[in-house]
Amino acid sequence: MNIPPSLERLVQELARLPGIGQKTAQRLAFSILRHDEARAQALSDAVLQVKEKIRFCERCSGFAEEALCQICQDPRRDERVICVVEQPSDIYVIERSGAFRGRYHVLMGVISPLDGVGPEQLKIRELARRLENEPAQELIIATNPSLQGEATALHLSRVLEGKAEKITRLARGMPVGANLEFTDDVTLSQAFSGRQDFVSS
Amino acid sequence: MNIPPSLERLVQELARLPGIGQKTAQRLAFSILRHDEARAQALSDAVLQVKEKIRFCERCSGFAEEALCQICQDPRRDERVICVVEQPSDIYVIERSGAFRGRYHVLMGVISPLDGVGPEQLKIRELARRLENEPAQELIIATNPSLQGEATALHLSRVLEGKAEKITRLARGMPVGANLEFTDDVTLSQAFSGRQDFVSS
Repeated sequence: MNIPPSLERLVQELARLPGIGQKTAQRLAFSILRHDEARAQALSDAVLQVKEKIRFCERCSGFAEEALCQICQDPRRDERVICVVEQPSDIYVIERSGAFRGRYHVLMGVISPLDGVGPEQLKIRELARRLENEPAQELIIATNPSLQGEATALHLSRVLEGKAEKITRLARGMPVGANLEFTDDVTLSQAFSGRQDFVSS
Repeated sequence: MNIPPSLERLVQELARLPGIGQKTAQRLAFSILRHDEARAQALSDAVLQVKEKIRFCERCSGFAEEALCQICQDPRRDERVICVVEQPSDIYVIERSGAFRGRYHVLMGVISPLDGVGPEQLKIRELARRLENEPAQELIIATNPSLQGEATALHLSRVLEGKAEKITRLARGMPVGANLEFTDDVTLSQAFSGRQDFVSS
C-alpha cells in the first residue's frame, strides 16, 4: 500500500488496540489527521499521562492517581460492604450501573491453572488481611460467570468463610431483554434454581 | 463516575473519534493502561507525527510526506489515467482493492450547496490545469454514489469535457454478495440500465 510511513505507523499502532481492525484503524487515523493540532496533542498527551499517573490503589487495587483511589477515599461509600472483582476495569462497569454504593477489592485476575495463575498470584491474602482490619458485613463476589470466575468465587467463599458476616455472589439468571428461546441451557437451569418470589410492590 | 481524571481524559479523547462510543473508549483506555510504557509512547508519538509530517500532495492532493505523494512519485503508475476521488482517504480504499494502477486527483469534497460548498471550493481548477499539462487518456470519476457525489460527477463531466480523451465513471449496480430481495430500487434500476454482455472467457 502506498500510505505515507507516518500514517501507516499510526494505523498499525491503532490496529493493535483490542477490537480495532485494519479498516477501523485507517478510519481513526484519517480522522486524527483531520483534527486540528491541539486535539491531536490532547489525545497524544492523554495516552502518555494515563501511563504516567495511574497506579493501583493501595487498599483495593483499583485505578488511582494517589495512594488511595477515589472510591476508597470517599467517606460516603459504605465500607461495610466489599465487592470483589477480577479486574480494575470491572469497577467502572459496576459504577456505571449505579447498583452498588460500597467499596471494592480487585483480585487482579482469576484462578486459571492453564495460565499458571493460582490463588497465591491473586490479591486474596490482601483481601483476608483487609477483612481483619475492616470487618465487613457483606462480601459480594462479582467474578465473571465463566469457568475460571466460578472456580475463583468458590475458592474465595471457602478461604474467606467467617471473615465476613455474609458472603454473597451476583445473581445468575436470564438477562433483561433476553428470550427463552435463545437462552443457553446452563443459564436457564441457573434461572430455575435461583428463581425468586414475586415481591408485591 | 469515580474514574481517575487522567483515565477519564483519555476516555473522553478516544470517545471523540468517529464510531467510538463511551464503552469502546473505556475498553481502549483500559487496554492502553495495560500496555508497557514503550507501546503507549509509540501510540502517543504516532498521533503527533502524523499531524507533523503529513501534508497534501502538490499534484493530486493525496496524503504525502514530501512535495509529491508516493503514488505521484512512482514511475510505474500509469499517468495517462487519472481517478478523481472526493477525499484523500478514498485513495487508500481503491489502493487496497488493487483495481487501479493509474494516478489520482482528490477534489477535497463534493458540491453541496447546503453546506456552502460550490465547485470553486473544490480542486476542479487544479484538475483542469493538470489535464492541460499532462494530457490524460482517461479520467475516471469515482465520487461516491450519493446525491452530492452524483451532482459533482455530472458537473465534472461537463466542465472537463474535451480535456481528456475519455471521461468515465465507476459502474453502479448490485454489489457482489448482494441479494435481489434486499437491493433498493435505485440500485436495481441502475443495474438494469447498466447491464453488461456476458463475456465468454
